[in-house]
Amino acid sequence: MSTYRAFEVTGSRQFRLVEREITHPEPGHVRVRVEACGVCHTDALAAEGRRADPQAPMVPGHEIVGVIDAVGDGVRGRHIGERVGVGFLGGQCGQCDGCRRGDFVNCSDQPLVGTTIDGGYAEMVHVRSSGLVRVPDGLSPVDAAPLLCAGLAMYQALQQAQARPGTLVAVQGIGGLGHLGLQYAARLGHRVAAVARGTAKAELAHRLGADHYIDSSAQDPAQALQELGGAAAIIATATSGASMTALVGGLANRGHLVIVGVPADPVSVSTPDLIFGGRVISGSLTGTAIENEDNLAFSLRRRIRPMTEVLPLSEAPKAYEHMMAGDARFRVVLDATA
Amino acid sequence: MSTYRAFEVTGSRQFRLVEREITHPEPGHVRVRVEACGVCHTDALAAEGRRADPQAPMVPGHEIVGVIDAVGDGVRGRHIGERVGVGFLGGQCGQCDGCRRGDFVNCSDQPLVGTTIDGGYAEMVHVRSSGLVRVPDGLSPVDAAPLLCAGLAMYQALQQAQARPGTLVAVQGIGGLGHLGLQYAARLGHRVAAVARGTAKAELAHRLGADHYIDSSAQDPAQALQELGGAAAIIATATSGASMTALVGGLANRGHLVIVGVPADPVSVSTPDLIFGGRVISGSLTGTAIENEDNLAFSLRRRIRPMTEVLPLSEAPKAYEHMMAGDARFRVVLDATA
Amino acid sequence: MSTYRAFEVTGSRQFRLVEREITHPEPGHVRVRVEACGVCHTDALAAEGRRADPQAPMVPGHEIVGVIDAVGDGVRGRHIGERVGVGFLGGQCGQCDGCRRGDFVNCSDQPLVGTTIDGGYAEMVHVRSSGLVRVPDGLSPVDAAPLLCAGLAMYQALQQAQARPGTLVAVQGIGGLGHLGLQYAARLGHRVAAVARGTAKAELAHRLGADHYIDSSAQDPAQALQELGGAAAIIATATSGASMTALVGGLANRGHLVIVGVPADPVSVSTPDLIFGGRVISGSLTGTAIENEDNLAFSLRRRIRPMTEVLPLSEAPKAYEHMMAGDARFRVVLDATA
Amino acid sequence: MSTYRAFEVTGSRQFRLVEREITHPEPGHVRVRVEACGVCHTDALAAEGRRADPQAPMVPGHEIVGVIDAVGDGVRGRHIGERVGVGFLGGQCGQCDGCRRGDFVNCSDQPLVGTTIDGGYAEMVHVRSSGLVRVPDGLSPVDAAPLLCAGLAMYQALQQAQARPGTLVAVQGIGGLGHLGLQYAARLGHRVAAVARGTAKAELAHRLGADHYIDSSAQDPAQALQELGGAAAIIATATSGASMTALVGGLANRGHLVIVGVPADPVSVSTPDLIFGGRVISGSLTGTAIENEDNLAFSLRRRIRPMTEVLPLSEAPKAYEHMMAGDARFRVVLDATA
Repeated sequence: MSTYRAFEVTGSRQFRLVEREITHPEPGHVRVRVEACGVCHTDALAAEGRRADPQAPMVPGHEIVGVIDAVGDGVRGRHIGERVGVGFLGGQCGQCDGCRRGDFVNCSDQPLVGTTIDGGYAEMVHVRSSGLVRVPDGLSPVDAAPLLCAGLAMYQALQQAQARPGTLVAVQGIGGLGHLGLQYAARLGHRVAAVARGTAKAELAHRLGADHYIDSSAQDPAQALQELGGAAAIIATATSGASMTALVGGLANRGHLVIVGVPADPVSVSTPDLIFGGRVISGSLTGTAIENEDNLAFSLRRRIRPMTEVLPLSEAPKAYEHMMAGDARFRVVLDATA
Repeated sequence: MSTYRAFEVTGSRQFRLVEREITHPEPGHVRVRVEACGVCHTDALAAEGRRADPQAPMVPGHEIVGVIDAVGDGVRGRHIGERVGVGFLGGQCGQCDGCRRGDFVNCSDQPLVGTTIDGGYAEMVHVRSSGLVRVPDGLSPVDAAPLLCAGLAMYQALQQAQARPGTLVAVQGIGGLGHLGLQYAARLGHRVAAVARGTAKAELAHRLGADHYIDSSAQDPAQALQELGGAAAIIATATSGASMTALVGGLANRGHLVIVGVPADPVSVSTPDLIFGGRVISGSLTGTAIENEDNLAFSLRRRIRPMTEVLPLSEAPKAYEHMMAGDARFRVVLDATA
Repeated sequence: MSTYRAFEVTGSRQFRLVEREITHPEPGHVRVRVEACGVCHTDALAAEGRRADPQAPMVPGHEIVGVIDAVGDGVRGRHIGERVGVGFLGGQCGQCDGCRRGDFVNCSDQPLVGTTIDGGYAEMVHVRSSGLVRVPDGLSPVDAAPLLCAGLAMYQALQQAQARPGTLVAVQGIGGLGHLGLQYAARLGHRVAAVARGTAKAELAHRLGADHYIDSSAQDPAQALQELGGAAAIIATATSGASMTALVGGLANRGHLVIVGVPADPVSVSTPDLIFGGRVISGSLTGTAIENEDNLAFSLRRRIRPMTEVLPLSEAPKAYEHMMAGDARFRVVLDATA
Repeated sequence: MSTYRAFEVTGSRQFRLVEREITHPEPGHVRVRVEACGVCHTDALAAEGRRADPQAPMVPGHEIVGVIDAVGDGVRGRHIGERVGVGFLGGQCGQCDGCRRGDFVNCSDQPLVGTTIDGGYAEMVHVRSSGLVRVPDGLSPVDAAPLLCAGLAMYQALQQAQARPGTLVAVQGIGGLGHLGLQYAARLGHRVAAVARGTAKAELAHRLGADHYIDSSAQDPAQALQELGGAAAIIATATSGASMTALVGGLANRGHLVIVGVPADPVSVSTPDLIFGGRVISGSLTGTAIENEDNLAFSLRRRIRPMTEVLPLSEAPKAYEHMMAGDARFRVVLDATA
């Protein structure tokens, strides 16, 4: 075949199926034949026009698993036929001061897959080799895809929090991120509290590993956490600054609130809550490619599995709408082999 | 002598000089003959009634240097004639879960000197032996006193921030805390930016070690810090949440804002500022007794000196009013040997 | 009852069953009614005379689970009927510089249970309250006992090594320590290599969580580990310095060898192995009481279980001989309720 | 000019002055006009034949300060006329797993300047842009050159040791590395002990910042350090494994011995010394380019200055012999502008 199919979207949420010519990857890049691609809320950056040129067509998708089928000049250590993943970060430049510190997540010249470069709602994708993640045998493409972004976000936030195994960790929000966060926290050996509104997800939370369920619409979550001894870490995934504000008081002394969800409203911090208790608040975006490999190795070994709904690639627009409507339980994955 | 003089204050700022009988220290405690005692803004907790029983008389003062002159039962490793300091923390209990973690700052059963137990506006003070700090030869009592609380706060905040020597550190506020913070940051080998309102203190800031001066009333301090490369750490001492809010954007990637001053208004954090850049905000109250010994050893060696105004103990009420009026440059110290 | 039974041993391995009078605990101490006590190789410190007064009788045993049945003066937060554990460390003094740093493991005035104070080969034991460990419901006394010393040693060594979940960790030696170390490493989500002599324990190692088995009598373990990618951490439990020496070269760059077993012969380190690769070697004795609580919470949650042989307390001498002969698979536990 | 002068050496210590043609740098590389180049003991790797092809001519020298005068394709952020430094590491590849972890020091495909690629005993040098270090104004080329390798080694070893400011740090050996190590440790605010054989360098040690001098030929250095309270960190620069072995016992609990000098004989570690006290031994080679920039910023600010003997580039062979004879006090620097 000399062409491949891809879904482009404009910033006004118009999807279009196109045929593109297959080209050889540029220097430093590889071409990946897509097997599966997760549908993530961040795809809205492409589809809702929050980018430089909103009407230019862009292929969304940044939870990609596939197989390398062409390697550009200057790429070492990668070979055709190797199964790889691609997450949100499209590969560090290696030259900016962030990269020189080894802080590749904050590279100042990094393409964002599916946002500033074409992504994985397609049969093929081109990507810088520094963005590639080895995918171990034993993880199916459909299961691995959401781990590359949503899973990594949870893995990395928990690493950043540095809570000791056995201590209390809370995960706020039970959605695409949180349903994985509960699993990671439990598998790392924490006592786990799930925090969400209402009781509809209580049983699910327990099944995913939560020891405690806190309905934040019925009780003050900070107080509820303090009654459990105070959280060594809280991973906040709900996109509400006000609800994160309400959590700070639930931290144990020296506890760490890691913000992963990106709310529109700010988090308001009463400084005595930080000073007395030596508490910490930080943000976490994602991890590097090799940290993603650690994450996949951990996930495989400890049986972290996203809850997925699988659709064929041809139904990408429908998959996107389903996710945006908040109806997905919990990650939608496009199967490009179907 | 069988009595000693002390200044008591009620919560309505009424000072009274009293004679008290000298008693033997209780088990686990020592009696210290005071040589010098700093006057700190936190003394207002006693003098302005922000405590359980505001009308009960209390001796303020928690930047105490003196000499042990009696040792209670069960105290090991302390002897009469030893020079010691006492800061804000009156000695950990050793039994609560905070203490069992070695987090003595957050002991849940710790007296606060000059606030919940009598402090150092006096010729004598009694304190738990776990609250004692060895004071090295070479530091005068007057110079050492403010280092025990204000100095330690700066030393410890900089330790918490973990910025590498040579990187940019900002100190916000040039007062009792900040004029020391500038010295600590400079002596630790950082490139130092002072952030304050107006230009009156610009020259002083440079003399204390600042490489850069940012007038936050004339320019956006976050932008100014970014133009300097972004701060690896910011130590915030001004008691204004709004002014701290304005600093978050001045952090470098992975930078750390440590809040030491306790504003009445909250700090409002835009979460993208934390997430993109992996930034951190934390609070720091003070350090432990042995960390205070590290601090004094460092201060002696690197010649950290508070700027002080010295008054005799007999003028304690005047000293307190002077400090509260904001007129002190920058720490007032009571000399109990005068 | 007004007396209790205890096994005393002299330094020449002579056991004697004695009746002792039940006394009220001293200030700061509690009395624990023993339910189970593990038999540990360190008990040889008492039984083989490696102590100050080898002929004085001593009750060995420091993997104790029981119930508080009397509380001395000055003890807060402990009550009769509470299930507690006691490990090797008999409770920190709180006053030495180690304690003032929060480094309770290295307290310079700490009794060692079953070595410098009477331990748990008995129906009753007296211990400083700072040495007590809360035991969660859900762990049986017999299962919990070996976790308090052998389990904690593995938990803490892995914490000290700071390897990221998903990375390769090797456990050297499959005995009382190592059979637990394999479980901890696997449950923390590491790829796990077991290193031991011969093939007799290969199948067991896999059952306990090892992904790889390295027979160090048939292949160079350093080379074998490098072929697996290099170990981010190696936990060395075999009591042979020479065999530890052979492992250093198996560390990945920035890898960390944590020595837990105490060999008689030294470990010999070729400095280029450390310098090129930035490798680290450290020792780990055990953890604090509250770290032991973290350990038990983790172990309960992730189902760490020692392999035990249970004998009634009355057969303590036989149990000791069995353990010393190297025949136990893998921890012998005395049941004091039998 | 279209040629430049360089000193080549064969592995049998034969120097030869050659004229080489000036060529344009390859992609990803820059050409640097050398101003100064330090002479380091590691130059022996080139001159004494410890390399792949000992008889091939090689230009030694890896403490290079100069000015960029040509920039190859694909290099961003560097411009002609910029003052830069080049240390031992010739620039990371960016693609190996070490680089993907941000551990550029342990890049598996990194040229070593003056050892596997031509170095700075020359008027010109070509180097990968990832190996470049910005040199701040205010440091002269002659002063900066030794800081790029010997200075960085000390800065980085102290960072790795993580001793708190104010605590005791020992520097073993007072030579090219140690005379800088004493300055760094003192300027970072440590109490500093110098350890060396004999008393000839005692006065110098104090002048460089040592508070204590330990003559290891007259007293047991471990015991002497314990009498001073035990070292939180020891930086070992003397190339003798036996002398490093003698230091381990001088560490405080949780203390850290960082090995920088590369002895031929091993360090022999008694494991109880590590286990009881939780002590740590690690190796440190050097730091990354951006860590070198932190180092230079620190050194400029805190006035770290190498003691140097300056010779013109034309006397490079003599400079090398002088250094190898152990006669230099303490770093020899070639001035290429003379």
